[in-house]
Amino acid sequence: MPLYLGIDGGGTKTECVVGDETSVLGRFTAGTSKIQRVGRDAATNSLRAAIQGALYAAGRSRDEVVHSCAGYAGASQAEVRQWLAETMAEFVPGGLTVVGDHTIAHEAAFKGGPGVLVIAGTGSIAFGRNEREQGARAGGWGPVISDEGSGEWIGRAATAACLRAFDAGTATSIMVRVLNTWRVSTREDIIRLVNSYPLPNFAALFPQVLAAADEGDTLAREILARAGNELAQLALIVIRKLWPSDIPVTIAASGGVVSNSTLVRQAMHNAIRAERKAARFDESPIDPTEGALYLARHAPPDARP
Amino acid sequence: MPLYLGIDGGGTKTECVVGDETSVLGRFTAGTSKIQRVGRDAATNSLRAAIQGALYAAGRSRDEVVHSCAGYAGASQAEVRQWLAETMAEFVPGGLTVVGDHTIAHEAAFKGGPGVLVIAGTGSIAFGRNEREQGARAGGWGPVISDEGSGEWIGRAATAACLRAFDAGTATSIMVRVLNTWRVSTREDIIRLVNSYPLPNFAALFPQVLAAADEGDTLAREILARAGNELAQLALIVIRKLWPSDIPVTIAASGGVVSNSTLVRQAMHNAIRAERKAARFDESPIDPTEGALYLARHAPPDARP
Repeated sequence: MPLYLGIDGGGTKTECVVGDETSVLGRFTAGTSKIQRVGRDAATNSLRAAIQGALYAAGRSRDEVVHSCAGYAGASQAEVRQWLAETMAEFVPGGLTVVGDHTIAHEAAFKGGPGVLVIAGTGSIAFGRNEREQGARAGGWGPVISDEGSGEWIGRAATAACLRAFDAGTATSIMVRVLNTWRVSTREDIIRLVNSYPLPNFAALFPQVLAAADEGDTLAREILARAGNELAQLALIVIRKLWPSDIPVTIAASGGVVSNSTLVRQAMHNAIRAERKAARFDESPIDPTEGALYLARHAPPDARP
Repeated sequence: MPLYLGIDGGGTKTECVVGDETSVLGRFTAGTSKIQRVGRDAATNSLRAAIQGALYAAGRSRDEVVHSCAGYAGASQAEVRQWLAETMAEFVPGGLTVVGDHTIAHEAAFKGGPGVLVIAGTGSIAFGRNEREQGARAGGWGPVISDEGSGEWIGRAATAACLRAFDAGTATSIMVRVLNTWRVSTREDIIRLVNSYPLPNFAALFPQVLAAADEGDTLAREILARAGNELAQLALIVIRKLWPSDIPVTIAASGGVVSNSTLVRQAMHNAIRAERKAARFDESPIDPTEGALYLARHAPPDARP
C-alpha cells in the first residue's frame, strides 16, 4: 500500500509522520536537522532517525513510500534544498516536495483555506493566503536582521536586557538563568560568547525567560510582551496586504513560543485587535507535520518520479 | 627627548599621534586594527603603519618613545590586550597603557573633568564620570546584543527595513544602496549574506543611509532618528546613575555616526532633554587620539618599564 511521509524540520526538532491515503500510521521526533545550526552530518543523522523511527512505529517498510513532503525554515536556500534532495534520495524512494515550514503549518491550520498563520519557534514568520489564493509573508529572513518575536529573538533580547540591567545597576533574575543555561560563571563569559562564532544558542534561553516571567520578573514579562507585539506587526503586514479592508480574518499561531506563552499570545492578539477589530483567533493546536503529510498525499503527479 | 604615542584603534581606522611633553609632533591614520574584524595579521600591519607613519611625520626615531597609550573598543577582552602587549613590544620601547576607546575619548572631551561621552562609530557606548570621580558605562557589549545606535546597528536596521518594506510591498531607495554596497544583485543574495559567516560589514551601509536620508527617504530618516534615540537611552542610563538629580550635566559625542548626522544628534538631544531639562550639549570636535596622548604623558610611573 502506498505510504506518504510528512516531515517538519525545525530549529529544535525534526518530526516525521508516516501515513497511507487516509490515516496516520506512525510518528517520530528526533533532534534538529537544520544544517545551518548543526552542520550536514548531524542534520543528516537527525533526519534519518526521524524517518526510520516513524517507519518503525508504523511497522512499515521504506520501500512502500511513494511521496514525501519536507517543510524547512531555510527551504528557500539552495544549499538546504540540495541537501534535502540528496539525503532523502538515500533514505526513501518516491517523489519529494520541499516547502517552507510556513507552508506546511498553514496547510495544517487552514486546510488550504484562507487565513494568517504566525509561527514563532526558534525563528519566526507570518504567512497568509486570502480567498483569491493570493499569498503573502513577513519576517523569517534569519536571526541577524529578522525573526522578530522568535525564541532566538527572545533569547537575544533577554541577554541584552541583562547587560542593560547591569549597566543601570538594577537586578534581574534572568542573568543567573543565562549563566546556568550556557554553563558559564561570569558576565565576561557571556560577552565573550555572544561576540564569538558560532553564536550561543539564544533560543535555549526562551524557557528561562518564560520561567522568570512566571515568577513575576518584570523584565522577562516585558520581553515576552514585546515579542507578542513584534509577531503582531508581522501578522499585520500580511493582513494589510491580503485584506485591505477590515473583514473577519482568522489568525492561527504555532511554534514553541506561542504555544507555551499565554503572555506572548495575549500581547499579539491585543496588538492585532488594536488595528483590526474583526480579527478572529483560532487557538486550536496545529500539527505542521500533518500539514506536510497532507501535501505529500496531494503532490501533483509530475512531482512523482 | 622623551616621546609619547597616543593610539586610537577603532572599527574603521587606526590613528596614531606622536608628541613630546607639550606638543603634537606627528600623526598618521591607517586601516582598522580590530583583530575581531580583520584578524591578527592585518591588524598588526595597520597598527605598525599608523605608528611608523606618525614617527615619520614627526621626523623622530622610535627609540625615543618612553610610553604609549592605546584605546581600543575591545580592550576588556584578554585576547585584545595580549595582542596589543606583544605587538607594541615589537614596534616601540617604553611602557604601555591599554584602555577602552571610551576612556581616551572621554579624556579628550573633558580633560579629566566630569561629563558624559556618547561614542557612536562602528560600535557604540556611553561613558561618564561625575564630580566625585565615579564612572559608569552603558552599551558597547558587541553588535549581537548591544551597540545600539552605532554604524553597525544602523546598517542592520536598514537591511531589516529593506526586507520589511519588501514584505509590505512598499518601496525604499535603501534597497538599491544595500545591493550596490555589497556588490550583489538580488534580495536573495542579501539574505544569503546576512545568514552566513563572517557577517557582511553592516557599518559600511551607514553612509548610504545618510545619503538616502538627505534625499528625503522616510525610512532612512526614521532609522537615523531611532539611532539617536537609542544613543540617548545609553546616555540616560549613565546620567541617572552618576547624577541622580537634574543638575546641568554636559554631554559630548564622538564617532562617525554622531559627527556626520545632524539628525542623529538632534534626536539624541531631544530624547535626553525630555528627561533632563538641564542637560548641556558640547558640540566641539573631539580627538580621541589626543586623549590617548595625554594619558601616555601622564601614565603612573609604575606603568613605565
